[in-house]
Amino acid sequence: MRLGFLFLSSSSPVVGSSISRSIVRPAPSLLLHRPFHFIPNRTTTDSNPFQFSPRTTLTASASSMASTFKPEQARVPPALQLPSPPITKFKIGLCQLSVTADKERNIVHGRAAIEEAAEKGAKLVVLPEIWNSPYSNDSFPIYAEDIDAGPDASPSTAMLSEAARLLKITIVGGSIPERSGDKLYNTCCVFDADGKLKAKHRKIHLFDIDIPGKITFKESQTLTAGETPTVVDTEVGRIGIGICYDIRFQELAMLYAARGAHLICYPGAFNMTTGPLHWELLQRARAVDNQLYVATCAPARDVDGGYVAWGHSTLIGPFGEVLATTEHDEAIIISEIDYSQIELRRTNLPLEKQRRGDLYQLVDVQRSSSQ
Amino acid sequence: MRLGFLFLSSSSPVVGSSISRSIVRPAPSLLLHRPFHFIPNRTTTDSNPFQFSPRTTLTASASSMASTFKPEQARVPPALQLPSPPITKFKIGLCQLSVTADKERNIVHGRAAIEEAAEKGAKLVVLPEIWNSPYSNDSFPIYAEDIDAGPDASPSTAMLSEAARLLKITIVGGSIPERSGDKLYNTCCVFDADGKLKAKHRKIHLFDIDIPGKITFKESQTLTAGETPTVVDTEVGRIGIGICYDIRFQELAMLYAARGAHLICYPGAFNMTTGPLHWELLQRARAVDNQLYVATCAPARDVDGGYVAWGHSTLIGPFGEVLATTEHDEAIIISEIDYSQIELRRTNLPLEKQRRGDLYQLVDVQRSSSQ
Repeated sequence: MRLGFLFLSSSSPVVGSSISRSIVRPAPSLLLHRPFHFIPNRTTTDSNPFQFSPRTTLTASASSMASTFKPEQARVPPALQLPSPPITKFKIGLCQLSVTADKERNIVHGRAAIEEAAEKGAKLVVLPEIWNSPYSNDSFPIYAEDIDAGPDASPSTAMLSEAARLLKITIVGGSIPERSGDKLYNTCCVFDADGKLKAKHRKIHLFDIDIPGKITFKESQTLTAGETPTVVDTEVGRIGIGICYDIRFQELAMLYAARGAHLICYPGAFNMTTGPLHWELLQRARAVDNQLYVATCAPARDVDGGYVAWGHSTLIGPFGEVLATTEHDEAIIISEIDYSQIELRRTNLPLEKQRRGDLYQLVDVQRSSSQ
Repeated sequence: MRLGFLFLSSSSPVVGSSISRSIVRPAPSLLLHRPFHFIPNRTTTDSNPFQFSPRTTLTASASSMASTFKPEQARVPPALQLPSPPITKFKIGLCQLSVTADKERNIVHGRAAIEEAAEKGAKLVVLPEIWNSPYSNDSFPIYAEDIDAGPDASPSTAMLSEAARLLKITIVGGSIPERSGDKLYNTCCVFDADGKLKAKHRKIHLFDIDIPGKITFKESQTLTAGETPTVVDTEVGRIGIGICYDIRFQELAMLYAARGAHLICYPGAFNMTTGPLHWELLQRARAVDNQLYVATCAPARDVDGGYVAWGHSTLIGPFGEVLATTEHDEAIIISEIDYSQIELRRTNLPLEKQRRGDLYQLVDVQRSSSQ
C-alpha cells in the first residue's frame, strides 16, 4: 500500500508531499490488511460501539415523525409564486457616487449620474447608501430630511421623484437620513417611472459593530430601526429593499424571496475591514441561496472622509455569479438583468421544492399577521 | 460641475472613463442648478408623488405593530447559548481521499489516512462523502452496509469505530451508502474518542439536480432522505452534520447554530460545474452568517470516474475566512480550530442580539415538538 498524501497545515499552507510515516511506524491494529468483513477488536469496550449514546446527542427524537417532507410548509405563510414582471429583460444602472459635505452638490451630482445612467439605457437606477450626506452620527441630524412632509422638506427625494418621472425610469434612491417626528432613520425611497413614491424602506438592522482597532460604529446612537421589510412592485419587477447591514441577516432575503421578489437591492457602504472580507460574499450568498438577482450600490471611496467606504457596487445573478462590479472609484455600472435566468436556475436546482418544511420553517411575521 | 464617471457594462466590463454626455446635451429640468430647496415640477402629476400608491406595495401594514425588536424571538425555540466545549483549541484533519471501486482498498486507505492525520496531531478527523464506494446510483445498493446491524454488517464504520478508539480521536466519518430495511440512505457516522457511535446523519436534502449539458444527477432514484437534523456533543465540541447538498439549505445551518453548534461538518462531493461556482461560497456563507466554524471534506478528483468531484476540502473560520484549503488531488489538511474566535466574532458583530424576532422567526420544528 502506497500513500502519498499532500500534507497541509494552516501555518504553512503547503508543506509538500510526504510519504506517510504510518508506513514507517505501523500501528498493527490499524494498518494490517484484514479480510473484507473484519470485526474490530472490541475487548476494551464493554458495549457495542454502534449503539448511540443518547446522553450527549442533541438530536430530537424523530421516531414518531415520519417525514412529511412538505416544501410548502418551509415558508409560513407559504412562499408566493414568482410573479410575471412587466418587463423581463432590462438594463440596471448602479451609480457609485462620490459624496461630499456639500448637500446641494450631492443632489446635483446624483441627478447627473442618474441622467447619465438613463441615457445609457438603464430602466432601473440604484444610488448608494447615504448619498446626500457624510456617513457619520454627527451628520445624520444635520442632513436629515422630512420625507413624509413632501418635496419642500426633502430636496433629495424631490430630485429623485422628478428624475424618475422625466426619465421614465424606476429609481431605488439609495438612502438618506430621514427625520420623522423626533426620530431619525436611514431610509431608502423607491420611485416608479411616473415619479411616484412607491415604497420607503427604513433600515431594519442598525449598523452597530465593534472590531477594535479596525472599525467601530453605532448607528443606534442616533438612528431608530425601521419597522417593516419592504417589497415593492415596479415597472422592472418585484424588488425587495435592504440597506447595508440588513444584508447580514439572511432571514430578510429569504423573506423577500418568499414574497416573490425578482431582485433585492442593497444600497450599502461597507467599510475597509468588512468590505474585502464580506461584501461580495454576502451578496453572492443571498443571490444563490434565494435564486434571485442582487444589486448593490456603494459610495465611492473617500480616503479623507471620516468613514471610508469599500465601494465595489455589484450586480449578482441568480446562480451567484458576479455579472458586473467595479473598484472603489466613482463609476456607473450598466448591466443587463434577465429574469428568465431565475426560472432557469430554479429549474436546474429546484431548492424551493426540496425544502424540508417538516424540519424548519421561516415565519414572515408581518405577512402572517396581516392574513 | 465636472463629471468623470467610469462607465461599465457587463458585456465589456471596463469601457474606460468618459465625460458624461449629459454635460454636452443638457436636459434642462434635470441639469439646471436649482436653489437648495427646489420644488419639482409636478404639473404633469395629479397628486403628491410622495404619497404611497398602496395598490402595488406588498409591504404588510405595520401601523399597529410597534417594533418589539426581540432577538430571542427570532429563533423558535429560542437559540441555545453556545456551550463550553471540552477543549477550545485543537487540530482538525480533513482527509481528501482518492476513492476506487475496490471497497476493501478504500477502507484500508481511509484508515491509513485517519492514522496519518492523528499522527500529525488531529483530534478530529473528517472523511469525504461516499468514501467507500464510487458515487453512482448503480453503486449505492452494491456498496451499502447495514450500520445498525453492527460491525459485522458494516466493515466501513467498524474501521472508523476502531480507529477512533485506538487513536483517541473524534471521527466525522464522511458518508457511506447505508441499507436499512428496504431503504438506502447517504449516511454520516460520528464516532467519539472512545469508539462509540455518537450520531448518524442521513442526508436530509437529496442531490437532485439538472443542469443540461453540465451535470444531471438524481439521488432520489435510489436513496431515501433522512428524517432529522443532527447535532452531536463530542470531545471536540458540539458539531452539526450536513452532507453535501444539505449545505445549500441555509435553514439547516441556522438551526444548528441555534442548537449551539461550534462547528458544522459537511462531507461533500460537489461537481465540476457547481464546485467552482458555489462550493467555497456556500461554506463561507454558512460560517459568516452563523458565526461558527465550517469544515468540508471531499473525495479527490478522479477524472476517469463516472462522477468527477471538485475536491477543495476546506476549513472556514467564524468570520468567513478560509483557514486552510487544497486543490483536487489527494491531501490531508491539518489546521487549527480555536473556538474563542467564535466569541470574538460574535462580540464584534452581535448578530444574535440584533435579529428581528418581530419580523421573522426560524422554527426548529423537531426541537419545538420535543419540548
